[in-house]
Amino acid sequence: MSDFNFEDHSHRRYNPFTGDWLQVSPHRGKRPWQGQEEDTSEAPKPAYDEKCYLCPGNTRINGEKNPDYTGAYVFQNDFGALTEDIPNGELSEGEFFKAKSERGTCKVICFSPRHDLTIPELDVQAITKVVELWKAEYRELGSKDFINHVQIFENKGSVMGCSNPHPHGQIWAQESIPVEPAKKQVKFGDYYQKYGRSMVLDYVYEELKKGERILFENDYFVGLVPFWAVWPFEAMIAPKTHIASLADMDEGQMAALADAYRQLAIMYDNVFKVSFPYSAGIHQAPTDGQNHPEWDLHMVFYPPLLRSATVKKFMVGYEMLANPQRDITAESAVKILKSQPKEHYKAGK
Amino acid sequence: MSDFNFEDHSHRRYNPFTGDWLQVSPHRGKRPWQGQEEDTSEAPKPAYDEKCYLCPGNTRINGEKNPDYTGAYVFQNDFGALTEDIPNGELSEGEFFKAKSERGTCKVICFSPRHDLTIPELDVQAITKVVELWKAEYRELGSKDFINHVQIFENKGSVMGCSNPHPHGQIWAQESIPVEPAKKQVKFGDYYQKYGRSMVLDYVYEELKKGERILFENDYFVGLVPFWAVWPFEAMIAPKTHIASLADMDEGQMAALADAYRQLAIMYDNVFKVSFPYSAGIHQAPTDGQNHPEWDLHMVFYPPLLRSATVKKFMVGYEMLANPQRDITAESAVKILKSQPKEHYKAGK
Ligand SMILES: O=P(O)(O)O[C@H]1O[C@H](CO)[C@@H](O)[C@H](O)[C@H]1O
Ligand SMILES: O=P(O)(O)O[C@H]1O[C@H](CO)[C@@H](O)[C@H](O)[C@H]1O
Repeated sequence: MSDFNFEDHSHRRYNPFTGDWLQVSPHRGKRPWQGQEEDTSEAPKPAYDEKCYLCPGNTRINGEKNPDYTGAYVFQNDFGALTEDIPNGELSEGEFFKAKSERGTCKVICFSPRHDLTIPELDVQAITKVVELWKAEYRELGSKDFINHVQIFENKGSVMGCSNPHPHGQIWAQESIPVEPAKKQVKFGDYYQKYGRSMVLDYVYEELKKGERILFENDYFVGLVPFWAVWPFEAMIAPKTHIASLADMDEGQMAALADAYRQLAIMYDNVFKVSFPYSAGIHQAPTDGQNHPEWDLHMVFYPPLLRSATVKKFMVGYEMLANPQRDITAESAVKILKSQPKEHYKAGK
Repeated sequence: MSDFNFEDHSHRRYNPFTGDWLQVSPHRGKRPWQGQEEDTSEAPKPAYDEKCYLCPGNTRINGEKNPDYTGAYVFQNDFGALTEDIPNGELSEGEFFKAKSERGTCKVICFSPRHDLTIPELDVQAITKVVELWKAEYRELGSKDFINHVQIFENKGSVMGCSNPHPHGQIWAQESIPVEPAKKQVKFGDYYQKYGRSMVLDYVYEELKKGERILFENDYFVGLVPFWAVWPFEAMIAPKTHIASLADMDEGQMAALADAYRQLAIMYDNVFKVSFPYSAGIHQAPTDGQNHPEWDLHMVFYPPLLRSATVKKFMVGYEMLANPQRDITAESAVKILKSQPKEHYKAGK
């Protein structure tokens, strides 16, 4: 029998940020597909759409009118999953029935007035405006007494459940620390306890030394595919110096994050020459009034496409019931992503 | 301010089987949808399709020919994510790079020779054949030295990533206990330690007492929507007497499980008068050679449809990055499911 190697043989990898394991099945790319294909016919979008709830000057479903905004623009989500004005309530009955009211607030951030331009098509300056707005919101929401966690994220593309095609992201801020960040909180805390250093930074420097999973670098950030990436082209943007949260970021760092966000989004679009769908967002220090030296902000990207613009990875059956599973290795994904041109495939067209 | 109530106010619920929390946002059903709609045009399927890899007598992609099977039929997955014949390998480098080879095996179970009949359209006898085959496979695979966990599941419908429309399920058997069952292993173990009883059975009897989340009962099984259900119409089939695994089941119990599976699947199809997609599967005792008095087998169903045959719940953005979230409560889902006719909507057509 030949020697074991990670490019050919089924294996599990450990995610030290969450404590979860991942199943990797590198040999599995060749199975036939008689299943669902996504519709990616991209009708060219207009710069302004009069029927869009998010375009400048338009009236939203609740009757409010968007201003004629020119940069990034934030407003209260008219259908927020979390609201401020609920009474407190708690249920605790034996071992099986535990529940608690949850206060919070949800916002929407339009990335730009343009209905037709996604992150990889905006310039760094425009994206920096988005990062600045994130920072302002993180600070403002996080300063509220009843907000202990601020989740900033983007669902890009209809295949990612994005309910409106105007490029935008969301913020859900709430009382409790949600499941995923809570796992990281534990692991980062343990690591800090043990080594007196940040787990994220230590990991980034290990990867920089190895080089094989690095996508790009700028002055303050690194784009990489984590060793334990779950989604086919999952990636992470992480800092090279301690940045616990957006609140700590200066001008230069914000521009660098915007640049990294853009670089990665361009790589993505270029892979299948299609507007690459993903869910992305920031994990950072909770806003619970504590100091968080164990935290470093990082942005994670979970894109579903697998073999083409129309065939995605389904996280179903085995994955839902048993264990996340991926078909190509993190290292092969890096090779594909790094071989892309630096310019967006639509640029100059 | 009015009193807190679970039907109107945002809250979190605790899942005692896994230790995870769920975000519930009951008021959120009314947001507008300009996002993706699923294609549910169901072209009537033929009873036999000559191009299907799973129909009796047809040749599969690897050149093997299916026999002219008449009941349920199992075969080795030609593109299994897990294989037996890999060398052992392990990586353990500091805190960040941990991986291990994973041996296993993957099988496919055709539910019946009929290309066009899903579980809710088969009779109890035919489904019992499926359950019998599950039992035989669980025993055979589980008896192998290097198999410590057997995951039996079904992906139904193309929206659930089902790569072949012929009604079938899968079995992935492997060395390690995957993430989800491992969480339950811990919680069931703790509970058994504390009370000397099975957590699943205690929960079932609590729900039977309350009644409000019960869908149906037969001699051996209960269909219910767990208090902490994540998916809009998530449900569970659980036993009324101790059954650690399929290996322990007698004829009567197997027929009862088949009956419960069918009853639930009919309810599902009737909700939106469409072949209701889901991922379903069995959580049961690991096959690690230990005794598992703390385990009771239960079947879980994760269906994605939310408001109609074409609008599903997307577990994206917030859900991937932060916390699973649902819009309608478990209790409203029960009401919708229970109000369905007992006969399949196509019956008699
Ligand atoms: O095995 P299939 O039907 O080819 O594939 C389907 O089920 C698997 C197990 O849940 C998943 O890993 C795949 O993503 C899904 O498309
Ligand atoms: O908020 P939207 O865009 O209406 O909805 C989308 O994002 C939310 C947050 O990730 C998800 O809960 C929804 O399932 C998804 O469709």
